[in-house]
Amino acid sequence: MDQRIRQSFGKQGMMQTLGAKVTSIREGQVIITAPIQPLASQQHGFAHAGMVFALGDSAAGYSALTVMPEDAEVLTAEMKINLVAPSNGQRLVATGEVVKPGRRLVVTRATVETEYADGTRKVVAILQGTMVPVT
Amino acid sequence: MDQRIRQSFGKQGMMQTLGAKVTSIREGQVIITAPIQPLASQQHGFAHAGMVFALGDSAAGYSALTVMPEDAEVLTAEMKINLVAPSNGQRLVATGEVVKPGRRLVVTRATVETEYADGTRKVVAILQGTMVPVT
Amino acid sequence: MDQRIRQSFGKQGMMQTLGAKVTSIREGQVIITAPIQPLASQQHGFAHAGMVFALGDSAAGYSALTVMPEDAEVLTAEMKINLVAPSNGQRLVATGEVVKPGRRLVVTRATVETEYADGTRKVVAILQGTMVPVT
Amino acid sequence: MDQRIRQSFGKQGMMQTLGAKVTSIREGQVIITAPIQPLASQQHGFAHAGMVFALGDSAAGYSALTVMPEDAEVLTAEMKINLVAPSNGQRLVATGEVVKPGRRLVVTRATVETEYADGTRKVVAILQGTMVPVT
Repeated sequence: MDQRIRQSFGKQGMMQTLGAKVTSIREGQVIITAPIQPLASQQHGFAHAGMVFALGDSAAGYSALTVMPEDAEVLTAEMKINLVAPSNGQRLVATGEVVKPGRRLVVTRATVETEYADGTRKVVAILQGTMVPVT
Repeated sequence: MDQRIRQSFGKQGMMQTLGAKVTSIREGQVIITAPIQPLASQQHGFAHAGMVFALGDSAAGYSALTVMPEDAEVLTAEMKINLVAPSNGQRLVATGEVVKPGRRLVVTRATVETEYADGTRKVVAILQGTMVPVT
Repeated sequence: MDQRIRQSFGKQGMMQTLGAKVTSIREGQVIITAPIQPLASQQHGFAHAGMVFALGDSAAGYSALTVMPEDAEVLTAEMKINLVAPSNGQRLVATGEVVKPGRRLVVTRATVETEYADGTRKVVAILQGTMVPVT
Repeated sequence: MDQRIRQSFGKQGMMQTLGAKVTSIREGQVIITAPIQPLASQQHGFAHAGMVFALGDSAAGYSALTVMPEDAEVLTAEMKINLVAPSNGQRLVATGEVVKPGRRLVVTRATVETEYADGTRKVVAILQGTMVPVT
């Protein structure tokens, strides 16, 4: 499972550009982290909503992959994000989890936190959405 | 209005990284385009959902800015995206529009299309969400 | 198609309770209307968000049914609603439409308007969501 | 706080029609239950998505009210629901909670479960959305 996720992840140009890494893989839960850098900022230097979404969505998608058959891939059918605070820390930590597995649809959630220099964290976004397996 | 949007846009590292440009600004509607490049790809070389979201969300956000007071800035409170087809063309065209302006909340929609080498387009995503003015 | 939708609709206790009627069926678009009554009010006497959602979601679902095979039924997988104005008229008019048909997922939108005594209308909600065929 | 919520709830015709009751109020969390009855059914006799939404949205809204000033009321700005299983039990239990309080926006989540005759429960829907205070 780990290898399958890391291979897929390694082929995503977007994740490489963002400097993102998969830091935890468990059945039903995947964590992705990335540094907050100028290349993915909004106009105040915080992480752009597009980066926050990309990490949360990917963490949710890979969490869905952990509950799918070996040969499946996963696509986001839809995703909803509520942005609740500015991403003004040093890095982002996105935790995706499966709420409801299914053969045709997998419902997921994700939480994205920003981490400060002292190691403390603050929730910046919550996501809820649907993944579909493709074979 | 144009200048305010272009200034804000120019400060977004994420939009620069994606090679995005504001190609149309009208009251209540903004269009943003960007080439589909390996740096923002998913594992099959198509545009990553994070890129599709970033463009659609930004187009929606700037469309909201066109109906706000001169000194306001805009934040995405929440956004929902349905991804309906793979982004397998050469560039993305994101059209954001205001559905319902308001003093405290601006409800927006966006459509993201992929454009092929021959100029034809296909809808790849629709978005619906809420922008809030901050001063 | 009309008969199939009207039969299904007639079996929905919720639609009967709300006094709802299917007033238009076309391929890819269905309109449902209902009077705003005390039995479905919120605390100020306007239509409850639950009623607004029920009509918008049903109009979207039946619009999806118009593009599905004869023997299919339809379920809402997920739906997002933005409530943009109070439902303070005399009745609600919900127009659902198919954005993207598909074998496994049908992406839909709906608009709900409130109609006043003089026949004028105001948009009160927009919805966007996913229907799945079940056989 | 309890009294304010129960008064508001008592004025909602929709909640009375559904036979809904507020069964728990704590700071940041409200639980609402209602029997699954033919008057709120879909075409197979299960609870209609409109009823599931109405309970989840109301539980979320009242949870937001518990963290607002005394004189405020609350409106749903937007709400997203994923329906994950049929509501085929005897009653529904909707638990709403505050994810992020705020002066202008309160972000909430809700989970709706169906309860069977033997007391066991199954999650049928999860919701995520934004409440706004109105004074």
